[in-house]
Amino acid sequence: MAAPGPGGQIEMNWKEELFCKAEIIDQALDRFLPPLSAYPQVVHEAMRYSIFAGGKRLRGAFVLSAAGMLGTDENRVLPAAAALEMIHTYSLIHDDLPAMDDDDYRRSKPTCHRVFGEAVAILAGDALLTKAFETLCLLYEEGFAANDVLQVTREIAAAAGSNGMIGGQVVDLDSEGIEITGDILEYIHSHKTGALFTAAVRSGALLAGAEDEELHVLSEYAAAFGLAFQITDDLLDLTGDEKKLGKKTGRDLAKKKATYPGLLGKEQAGQLAADQVKKCIMSLTSFGPKADFLRGAANYILSRES
Amino acid sequence: MAAPGPGGQIEMNWKEELFCKAEIIDQALDRFLPPLSAYPQVVHEAMRYSIFAGGKRLRGAFVLSAAGMLGTDENRVLPAAAALEMIHTYSLIHDDLPAMDDDDYRRSKPTCHRVFGEAVAILAGDALLTKAFETLCLLYEEGFAANDVLQVTREIAAAAGSNGMIGGQVVDLDSEGIEITGDILEYIHSHKTGALFTAAVRSGALLAGAEDEELHVLSEYAAAFGLAFQITDDLLDLTGDEKKLGKKTGRDLAKKKATYPGLLGKEQAGQLAADQVKKCIMSLTSFGPKADFLRGAANYILSRES
Repeated sequence: MAAPGPGGQIEMNWKEELFCKAEIIDQALDRFLPPLSAYPQVVHEAMRYSIFAGGKRLRGAFVLSAAGMLGTDENRVLPAAAALEMIHTYSLIHDDLPAMDDDDYRRSKPTCHRVFGEAVAILAGDALLTKAFETLCLLYEEGFAANDVLQVTREIAAAAGSNGMIGGQVVDLDSEGIEITGDILEYIHSHKTGALFTAAVRSGALLAGAEDEELHVLSEYAAAFGLAFQITDDLLDLTGDEKKLGKKTGRDLAKKKATYPGLLGKEQAGQLAADQVKKCIMSLTSFGPKADFLRGAANYILSRES
Repeated sequence: MAAPGPGGQIEMNWKEELFCKAEIIDQALDRFLPPLSAYPQVVHEAMRYSIFAGGKRLRGAFVLSAAGMLGTDENRVLPAAAALEMIHTYSLIHDDLPAMDDDDYRRSKPTCHRVFGEAVAILAGDALLTKAFETLCLLYEEGFAANDVLQVTREIAAAAGSNGMIGGQVVDLDSEGIEITGDILEYIHSHKTGALFTAAVRSGALLAGAEDEELHVLSEYAAAFGLAFQITDDLLDLTGDEKKLGKKTGRDLAKKKATYPGLLGKEQAGQLAADQVKKCIMSLTSFGPKADFLRGAANYILSRES
């Protein structure tokens, strides 16, 4: 193995930390979801097939990290981390459907509807979304104040709804094959991807009793992170390695999707992603070393291969 | 107009009361949902198209009535009533999709996906489900204790999820074209239809501070109501008037759906519905005249035409 370049060691540590967080999130998901054997089995198989298909758990890790850096035991916010991963997974199942993006593979595995059929895939997505809100209620049992749990629930619902993530997906589908402005492209990305990242850091921070200023800074961080993340997603679709990505590349071009590389060209899009990562790092200054995990997440974006 | 037969006057009053409750629920839905003009418009048009398509608002009325009969101002529980109607509507939008029941008409109107396309219909359903949970959080602003709001949220999520309504739909789809037992048919109906009626009366009662015994009685009522309601639904599909129903009849037979008339024959199925209605009325004895609305609802089932 080559010696790590500048930042290599830090990145390695960050990946290890993400891996640890992902492990405890996976264990929590396993506890919160109905067992495979629960009747009717097929929907629980489909829910678990998609949620344990190898996601990076970035949204869940953001919840844990935001709570932890403000002094709250990360284990106590696991219901919020798990809920965000359920919402993220449901959105992928529905986005992959033939009526939407019509994708056959995700993370090197056949998509949910390819394995279980469209009807079960739709219902498994619905069930994950519903379970997310049931799971959020478990935060109360972790000793958080009931009104804080309600505030977090409300923010997550707003971020996932028609003025958030779903709104972004609607405009994304609507924009296929037509020329769109930078404003609309920004709307798509900030809603489809940014809203859930923002809800993730804010949930963890709110539960940890963050001050308004801290919430403001974390929201700025998440917005920049979401944008950088989405731009690299688009770039990987153009230039990435299909094996590492676990899905076909060139899908955006084929579907005439609106993308930053499409609007600005690859080089300028890459520059915009780098600028957003810088913005992420800058925004975290006041937190000092406590924010190292979020810093590492921002730096990781530029080296993403999947 | 013919003079009302025995019970005719009571039924007329009940219909008027349902109409009044439906009106205030509709006004609440209009307040809670994003306006038609909100970007992206198409998803908000689709959400409103389906939710204002002429539903009877039985679930919402159950929330109001259960709270009112236990001494709580019905207006204060409107967020719960609206949330249940959003969940019911989302389930209809998704059930009507080509990959599910593939229905073109509902309540005399083209189904959501026929008007807006499949992608928008899926997303509008998702958005209504998400909005339901955001709306439940508004109960806190009505002065209910935050932990009671969380308990209601948790019950509604459980009733709507893969161990509730979605579970019923999964087994229903799975049972098309095959012979099934009475146990499985009971599972389908108690989950697909009963769970949400039960969640409705329990939500209203929980918010009104019901005792365990009252919750128990109301749960029994709702289970019997849901079953009677579903049997008459099945009977109307066999013998109803397409104009009054607003949808094609004979669909269950064509799709080889598992139904009570199919399992028991029309006559015995009708008898079972009547027995359940009696059970509903009996269960309410301890409530006295306060439960007249719920009594009227049970009696209405046997005279349903749509």
